[in-house]
Amino acid sequence: MSDKDIKKSFERSAQTMRGDNKTFGSQLTKEDFNDPSLHEDIHGKVSVEYENIEKSPSMEDMHKWQRDHIKVDDQSKEGYPLNVIIDPAMREMYQVVHNAGMTNVFDRFSQQQPIQCKFCIEGLSCQLCANGPCRISPKVPRGVCGVDAHTMVARNFMYRHVTIGTSANIFHAHQAARTLRAAGENPESGLKIRDPEKLKKFADMAGLDANKPIDQLAVDFADWVIGDIHAPHHVESKLVEAFAPTKRKELWRKLGLFPGGGYSEVAYSQTSCMTNFKSDPVDFLLNSVRLGVANEYQGLFALNIIQEMLMGTQKIAMKKQNMGLLKEGMVNIITNGHMPLVAHVALDLASTDEWQQKAREAGADGIQILGHVCEGQQLMNYSGTHDQKAYAGQEGEWLSEEYVLATGVVDLFMFDYNCTVPTLPIYAKKFGTKLISTHPVIKLQGVETLDFVPEKMNEQAEKLLEKAIEAFKERKKSNKKTYIPPHTSECMVGFSTESVQEALGGSFKPLIEQIANGNIRGIATIVGCTTARYGQGGSNIFKITKGLIENNILVLSGGCTSSVMEYTGLTHPNAAEEAGDGLKAVCKQLGIPPVLNYGACVDIGKMAQTAKELADILDVDTNKLPLVIGAPEYLEQKAVSDACSAVAAGWLVHVAPVPSITGSDLVVKTLTETTETLGLGKVVVELDAEKTVQIYIDHIEKKRKELGL
Amino acid sequence: MSDKDIKKSFERSAQTMRGDNKTFGSQLTKEDFNDPSLHEDIHGKVSVEYENIEKSPSMEDMHKWQRDHIKVDDQSKEGYPLNVIIDPAMREMYQVVHNAGMTNVFDRFSQQQPIQCKFCIEGLSCQLCANGPCRISPKVPRGVCGVDAHTMVARNFMYRHVTIGTSANIFHAHQAARTLRAAGENPESGLKIRDPEKLKKFADMAGLDANKPIDQLAVDFADWVIGDIHAPHHVESKLVEAFAPTKRKELWRKLGLFPGGGYSEVAYSQTSCMTNFKSDPVDFLLNSVRLGVANEYQGLFALNIIQEMLMGTQKIAMKKQNMGLLKEGMVNIITNGHMPLVAHVALDLASTDEWQQKAREAGADGIQILGHVCEGQQLMNYSGTHDQKAYAGQEGEWLSEEYVLATGVVDLFMFDYNCTVPTLPIYAKKFGTKLISTHPVIKLQGVETLDFVPEKMNEQAEKLLEKAIEAFKERKKSNKKTYIPPHTSECMVGFSTESVQEALGGSFKPLIEQIANGNIRGIATIVGCTTARYGQGGSNIFKITKGLIENNILVLSGGCTSSVMEYTGLTHPNAAEEAGDGLKAVCKQLGIPPVLNYGACVDIGKMAQTAKELADILDVDTNKLPLVIGAPEYLEQKAVSDACSAVAAGWLVHVAPVPSITGSDLVVKTLTETTETLGLGKVVVELDAEKTVQIYIDHIEKKRKELGL
Repeated sequence: MSDKDIKKSFERSAQTMRGDNKTFGSQLTKEDFNDPSLHEDIHGKVSVEYENIEKSPSMEDMHKWQRDHIKVDDQSKEGYPLNVIIDPAMREMYQVVHNAGMTNVFDRFSQQQPIQCKFCIEGLSCQLCANGPCRISPKVPRGVCGVDAHTMVARNFMYRHVTIGTSANIFHAHQAARTLRAAGENPESGLKIRDPEKLKKFADMAGLDANKPIDQLAVDFADWVIGDIHAPHHVESKLVEAFAPTKRKELWRKLGLFPGGGYSEVAYSQTSCMTNFKSDPVDFLLNSVRLGVANEYQGLFALNIIQEMLMGTQKIAMKKQNMGLLKEGMVNIITNGHMPLVAHVALDLASTDEWQQKAREAGADGIQILGHVCEGQQLMNYSGTHDQKAYAGQEGEWLSEEYVLATGVVDLFMFDYNCTVPTLPIYAKKFGTKLISTHPVIKLQGVETLDFVPEKMNEQAEKLLEKAIEAFKERKKSNKKTYIPPHTSECMVGFSTESVQEALGGSFKPLIEQIANGNIRGIATIVGCTTARYGQGGSNIFKITKGLIENNILVLSGGCTSSVMEYTGLTHPNAAEEAGDGLKAVCKQLGIPPVLNYGACVDIGKMAQTAKELADILDVDTNKLPLVIGAPEYLEQKAVSDACSAVAAGWLVHVAPVPSITGSDLVVKTLTETTETLGLGKVVVELDAEKTVQIYIDHIEKKRKELGL
Repeated sequence: MSDKDIKKSFERSAQTMRGDNKTFGSQLTKEDFNDPSLHEDIHGKVSVEYENIEKSPSMEDMHKWQRDHIKVDDQSKEGYPLNVIIDPAMREMYQVVHNAGMTNVFDRFSQQQPIQCKFCIEGLSCQLCANGPCRISPKVPRGVCGVDAHTMVARNFMYRHVTIGTSANIFHAHQAARTLRAAGENPESGLKIRDPEKLKKFADMAGLDANKPIDQLAVDFADWVIGDIHAPHHVESKLVEAFAPTKRKELWRKLGLFPGGGYSEVAYSQTSCMTNFKSDPVDFLLNSVRLGVANEYQGLFALNIIQEMLMGTQKIAMKKQNMGLLKEGMVNIITNGHMPLVAHVALDLASTDEWQQKAREAGADGIQILGHVCEGQQLMNYSGTHDQKAYAGQEGEWLSEEYVLATGVVDLFMFDYNCTVPTLPIYAKKFGTKLISTHPVIKLQGVETLDFVPEKMNEQAEKLLEKAIEAFKERKKSNKKTYIPPHTSECMVGFSTESVQEALGGSFKPLIEQIANGNIRGIATIVGCTTARYGQGGSNIFKITKGLIENNILVLSGGCTSSVMEYTGLTHPNAAEEAGDGLKAVCKQLGIPPVLNYGACVDIGKMAQTAKELADILDVDTNKLPLVIGAPEYLEQKAVSDACSAVAAGWLVHVAPVPSITGSDLVVKTLTETTETLGLGKVVVELDAEKTVQIYIDHIEKKRKELGL
């Protein structure tokens, strides 16, 4: 980067830095997008060809291939990555990108393999202070400060993963609460309160006066949530007090795991990670579980209910997924991330005749919005999306992000939150996509960023749609080649505590009866990310889920796992045929698939809520349920925090790949054994799909036995 | 560790986990201290001999040796570590420990050298997600997610260092505010408001009603501070608004660097470090500077003024330093850390005849308390300590911690905060020291931890003193060999904005005149830690400071640097003789040394305040002052945050060793050049002492020229 470039980049950052109190608008000019540092991978030399790739078969044949493929067990290094990619559209587009020599996630994974560091893999490398970096080995058992393997591993676990993930989920809830507040205070913001009954219900549980006018109640409830998130760490959380199961609260108090305000908890935890500060490994792990409680109630649970208040609680419906939903003749908008706030307002607007007409005036057949990653899963599920004309479905999992831009037909890719990969500016430049961030918390190199101003979301959404139409015009003018892989999946969506209850006739009792009579042995959540690792890439999720439903275990999915369930057909009611006899009968009776799509990774909060309601009916603590939490391809820090939440709730949490904790037998033993003896859950690490299924079955059968079933 | 040990450790952690609302007391039994995992380094085999070591010369001869030694430039690998250790007591005790084969900081540094990782040194290693760990090299320019070198380095910089250091300083201010609140509300707590005028002054500046009774004002002011620390990130900080220089505030607003509540800022920053989240390197750096503003006003500044309200603003006095202050026949208590809250109450108590008598009843000559590390520097400076009978002086820098325990005469080592090294339990066990943590935020393996309960500090302090007397009795009973290196330094202490002003006759004008007439060319702060690195260990600090005062640059010191100044004689008024002619004349006239001991690393906030007052008198922005900030042996994360604070204030910040940012030319250039062009300060990295001195001189002369001097 030249001096001028750095200066420009600095000023650009300054201009959009956390502009929460500033007016809408970016100061960027077109020049900013010509930043040469962004384009070292292409140099204009890359030639993209859509012809010379192996096209995937039809969706029906694809499903057959997927099922045959996982039986032959060839998902390791040989034949990678096409032996792990089981999404037909991604299989095609990977070839396009790879053949063009463009940097992309699967190829980057291969490139990193020879140089992966053994110390980092085991958590035995520390970079915190200027006496380091240090590495621990049997010959050199302590870092310069004197830290041993156990403390180093436990501290790395907490500060690299848990504090970051917990911050992110609570931050999300915080932004959602700000948006709910704006919906109450600024009717012109474009935000709606679509589920006032839910607002009343939870406001009442929070001890607020639920008889106030709904707009005022929205403000009160939002303030209550924001206040709790920002309370000191030594003041017990009101959200936890109001919404967590009574028996759990008792245990957490006894173990010192009842958190205060989440942000103060994070700062407390970070403080303890200073050099020459805390050096008790068990305490770091306990602190991580405490953060897990905050992560659940001040993060996941809070953001779930608030987003449902705004976008309408989920309803069961049939919807579509995958890249085949893109249309060459349409203005194609993809909205990505996890926090569809301004995106939902854009969807409202784009669904009006006025905006469809504007798109037609630009030469398009219309304007459509697809959701990508978890944002796509959420939008697909909310009742407030179901009838919106401009809503076109879910596009795919995070791994497909670079590949979908390579179709050349994405006009606007807007994003609010992770997962948005750092290479998108390269793809956007190459394939003519306009990128816009809708929150300063996520900035990409040289990419326009909107301030987060919930009070002005209508205005912001209009600008976003205008930019999309502009980009469409540019695309048409450029006359570039494009290619849309012609694959889509039909899937049943919209499962949540309320919608499942409704489907069961208004009560969870029929489900409990089916569990009691053994038709359903138990429940597994298959949640979280997909990774680019050997043996993973979606294929591990698919293998495990197949095994579980064949053994009559009902699966709930949330996260990029939901995309996998969708493109493998497991969220279609027809998949009932693949389930064991008991589960099959239940599914057929209710007309549902054996995998219930709860939506996004952040919807894990909804699953926890469903579990709580089941436990309440059975009058048992949550750790007594025949339930397993699985994250068979977990990737990032929110997943680690979510695992801590599950341990706090008393559940068995299966994770793969192997977390970077193996350098300490004490840390491994504490998380995989000791926690359970205290009434908490525990972690199980297992990479092999068949063994994983057996672990789930054994745990569920053990819990059934304990319940006398 | 056996199963039983892990379980016990877990339960112990749970029992003392963040017990802010619980009553005093630990649940530990004596058995907990027999945990075998803590003692792998000794196995009872280590034989300690005090005879066969080379004894240091007298203090006067030592000062000569130190001055000759740094001239010959042999502080590198050959002859390490005795070529970098220039503290006479530490030189002796290092040999004791090393000869006994015990793990210790200098030997551990040597052991780590052959295995230090090049990628980690440059910031080019990432362990955030399960697709990694990744390393970046010219051949493999991106991590699996797509992150490039610039983003990886900048993100590592922020989440590994800045968020942790900022959290820690703000956490400190938060605990101090809770203590001030308790002093107002609970007179029986043992806490005193020793500087009510200071409380009134700052409460008035905060916009509070300063005419209220002082107890109520303490509560109000504490609540105001705690409230600001816990405000949302999108609400401008009241502390910054009330206390930062006007011109700076304008600039920070323009650049988006005006922070909101500090804890919310930390959580915001952590959120952006999620995988596939922010990938703009410049934005990470800008965010780090923003955290630096919060670090200064919600951290350093706030904790400084609150501790002064409680312990009495600093007053100039002559005091003593080093291990020679320990007395074989006394009950010796060392209090360590940075937050002497309960420690100060213990000092009040121990100074009473009642407790001195109790010590005598146990067979001791009395009871005395020494401060270690920054806590020692603070206690030595507060006016509320000056006349306390039990106060015995400052013991040493953080590097000497293991060595001081090896004297065998430390009965109680209590600590509240960093720097407390993880190996202390090994030393405590071996040498019969009782260890007690006074805040759950810092737990050591198998070590008793008190809850932080400011309302009960008197009661806690009593228990601490009782434990010390018990430990003394055990020591006498055991009849173990002990050895106290017979070295102490005389030093002038107690410098602060107010005391310097007082020494100058009530106004800073005389100082400004001396700067204007060139007797004093400018001011350098030499602050922060000492490291165990080649060329450092205190010797780099000493070399640079010598060079600066010889060139008529007045030095302010804070942190472990103050220990170095003390054991090298530079804080004695006699050191005026070593200064250049101009500075010498000023020092002699005022009877002060050329190095003014401002105290602890956290007292950097006081230095910033002194600078602000100078700038106000000159009616210039802070970045116009002939001032350099130096951290020639910075170690940990608070130092990095403090550097960000200094960059925000517009100052040149010299650091050594090399921070782990060299993997990105963009990051290096941004921090060392671009920031200055925006009116901020900049960072300079230089390892050579002579070159460092020249950099300071050049910068000060440049600033003088700009001011027309």
